[in-house]
Amino acid sequence: MPDHTHDAPTSAALEEFRLFRERMNKEILDEGNLVVNRFFALDGRTYEAGALDAKTKELLGLVASLVLRCDDCVTYHVVRCREEGVTRDELFETLSVGLVVGGSITIPHMRRAVARWGELGG
Amino acid sequence: MPDHTHDAPTSAALEEFRLFRERMNKEILDEGNLVVNRFFALDGRTYEAGALDAKTKELLGLVASLVLRCDDCVTYHVVRCREEGVTRDELFETLSVGLVVGGSITIPHMRRAVARWGELGG
Amino acid sequence: MPDHTHDAPTSAALEEFRLFRERMNKEILDEGNLVVNRFFALDGRTYEAGALDAKTKELLGLVASLVLRCDDCVTYHVVRCREEGVTRDELFETLSVGLVVGGSITIPHMRRAVARWGELGG
Amino acid sequence: MPDHTHDAPTSAALEEFRLFRERMNKEILDEGNLVVNRFFALDGRTYEAGALDAKTKELLGLVASLVLRCDDCVTYHVVRCREEGVTRDELFETLSVGLVVGGSITIPHMRRAVARWGELGG
Amino acid sequence: MPDHTHDAPTSAALEEFRLFRERMNKEILDEGNLVVNRFFALDGRTYEAGALDAKTKELLGLVASLVLRCDDCVTYHVVRCREEGVTRDELFETLSVGLVVGGSITIPHMRRAVARWGELGG
Amino acid sequence: MPDHTHDAPTSAALEEFRLFRERMNKEILDEGNLVVNRFFALDGRTYEAGALDAKTKELLGLVASLVLRCDDCVTYHVVRCREEGVTRDELFETLSVGLVVGGSITIPHMRRAVARWGELGG
Repeated sequence: MPDHTHDAPTSAALEEFRLFRERMNKEILDEGNLVVNRFFALDGRTYEAGALDAKTKELLGLVASLVLRCDDCVTYHVVRCREEGVTRDELFETLSVGLVVGGSITIPHMRRAVARWGELGG
Repeated sequence: MPDHTHDAPTSAALEEFRLFRERMNKEILDEGNLVVNRFFALDGRTYEAGALDAKTKELLGLVASLVLRCDDCVTYHVVRCREEGVTRDELFETLSVGLVVGGSITIPHMRRAVARWGELGG
Repeated sequence: MPDHTHDAPTSAALEEFRLFRERMNKEILDEGNLVVNRFFALDGRTYEAGALDAKTKELLGLVASLVLRCDDCVTYHVVRCREEGVTRDELFETLSVGLVVGGSITIPHMRRAVARWGELGG
Repeated sequence: MPDHTHDAPTSAALEEFRLFRERMNKEILDEGNLVVNRFFALDGRTYEAGALDAKTKELLGLVASLVLRCDDCVTYHVVRCREEGVTRDELFETLSVGLVVGGSITIPHMRRAVARWGELGG
Repeated sequence: MPDHTHDAPTSAALEEFRLFRERMNKEILDEGNLVVNRFFALDGRTYEAGALDAKTKELLGLVASLVLRCDDCVTYHVVRCREEGVTRDELFETLSVGLVVGGSITIPHMRRAVARWGELGG
Repeated sequence: MPDHTHDAPTSAALEEFRLFRERMNKEILDEGNLVVNRFFALDGRTYEAGALDAKTKELLGLVASLVLRCDDCVTYHVVRCREEGVTRDELFETLSVGLVVGGSITIPHMRRAVARWGELGG
C-alpha cells in the first residue's frame, strides 16, 4: 500500500497526477475568483523565454521547488525540463545546488525527482 | 496507485483520515506526556469563539495551514469551515490570500483543499 | 547598536520602513518586468472586500505573515488592521492562532507585532 | 485508498520505504555527481559519536526532521533512535520539544512518528 | 550602521535583546489572552528535566531553532546551553547536525550563534 | 536607527557584511569540526562550472536563497551574479520566478536584493 514517501513512480502514477491536476485546475478556474485566476495565468507566463531562455527558467523553477520541498511542483518542472532538452548531468547539477542550499531534508524529494525523470523514459 | 500528490479524495479517504487521526491522538494522549497533552488541549481552545467568532478563527486556521502546506491541517479546517457555515466564495477568497502570500507552491494543497470541500457534499 | 532582533520600534523606525518600502517598490515597478508588475498589482487586489470584508482579509494576511515569519509583512498588515478597525483583543486572538499553528518560533515576531501595534498609538 | 496523510503504517510499508530508499540512493550515487556523493557521505558522518554520543545525535536529527516536517527523515531517525536504545519516554520528550517549537502543524508528523515507532515492535 | 545580517554581537546587544524580550513578554502576558498565556507557560515547561536532562533538551531546542532559522530562539538556547554546561565541542556538533539537515541557508544563523557564544565569555 | 527590515543598503553595510562573514567563517573553520569544515568546502564546490556554467549556477543559488528567504545568501549570490556577468534583466527574471513560486513573503527580500544590486554600482 504505497504512500508518497516510498512509492516507486510508474507511468500510471504520472498519468494519474496529470489527470487530477487537470481536473482540479479546471474546477478551480471555473470558480471565477479573480485573484486565483490571475495568479494561475501569471504562473504560466513566469516560465516563458525572455532575457533568460525557457530551459534556464525551468531549472530555476525546479531548484526553487526542490528547496521548498513541493513534490508536485518538482514533478511538473522535471517533465518541463525534459521537454526543454535538459540533460541528466544538468538535472543532477541543479539538484546538487538544491541539496547543498536546502540540506538533507531535500533528499527524499531528490529521490522522487530522479525516479520521475527515469519514468519519462529516454 | 494513488499517492497524496494526486489522489482523488473520496468519502472513504476522508473517513480513513478521521479514523487514523482519532486512533493516534488517543495513543499519544494516553502516553501522559504533560507538555504534549497540554498542547493538544490548548490547540482545541484556540478556535473557540471570543472577540472573533468561531468561523473567522477557522478561516485563520485554514490560511495558516495552507501557507505552511500541511494537508492534514487543511483537511481538518476545511471540514470545520463547512460546519461553521463558510460559503464556497468565502473558501476561495481565503485560499486566494494564502495563494498570493505563499506562492505557487501552495497550489497542490489548494487543489486538495477544493477536492476535500467537494467531498463534503453540498 | 540595535538589530531587528531586539530593537524597540519607534515611530521613526516605522517611518523609515515606509520610505524604504516605497522607494524600492518604485524602483522595482519602474523596471517594467511584466510578471513582477502583475504580481504587485495582484497583491493589492487580494485584500479588497468581496465575500469576505477587508478587515477579515487583513486578519488572514496577518496570520499568514506571522506563521511564515515575515516581519515586514506583519508590520504591513498590523498597520492595515488598525486602519480597518481591528481591536486589540482581535489582534491578540489572531496572533494566538498563529502562535499555536506555528509554534514558539513565532514568538519573536509576535513581540515585534505587538510593539508595532503600540507604536501606532491609541 | 490510503495516502500518506492517513495511512496506518505497517511493517510492509516500512519495508517498502527501505527498498525504495535503497534503490534510489544507489541510482543517485551511481550517477557520480561529486557534490551529491560528498553530501551523502557527509550526511552519514554527521551522526557518528563524538563529543556527543550517537543516541543524542539521533535525537537531534529527529527533532530537526520533525520541525522541518520531513516524514521520510522522521522515519529514518525513529528507526535509528530505536537502535540506539532511546526509550518511549525519551521519544515523547523529544517530540514534545518539536511540537512546542514548531507548532500544531507538526502534529500530523508526530502521529506518523509514533505509528512508525509502534511498527518497530516492542 | 549594522543590521542583524552582519552585526558583531556585543554584550550590549545581548543585554538589549534581554530587555526588549522581557518588556514585550510582560506586555503580552498582561494582555490576559488565555491561549497565549498558556502557550508561554507551556514553553517554559518544555525544557525542564524529565526522561531527558535539561542539557539535552536545550541542545534539542537549539538545533530546532537553527534549522527553523530563528535568531532570537538560537540566542536564547545558546545562553541556556552555556548555563547547562554545554562545551564548545558539543555546541559545534549540535550546529553541525543542523547544518547538514537544514543546508547552507543555516550558515548565517550559525555564524551568529557562534558569535553569541563568544560574547558570553569563557 | 535602521534594522534589516528597512535599511537602505550602503557600500559601508556591504563591506561590514563581508568583514563579519569573513571573521566568523575563520572562527568556525578554525574550530576543526570535521562535518562543518567539509560542508563549507562542499558549499564552495557546488557553484563551480560543470555541465551548467557558473553563471547559471549562481542564478540557481539566488532563486533558492530568495524562496528560502535568506538575506545573507541573497546578498552573496547577488554579488556573485554580478561577477559572472548577469544583466539587470536576467536578475529581474530570476527574481520573478522566486516571487511567483514563493509568494508575496519574498517581496521584502526582493527589495533588499535589488537594493544590494544597486549598491554594486553600474
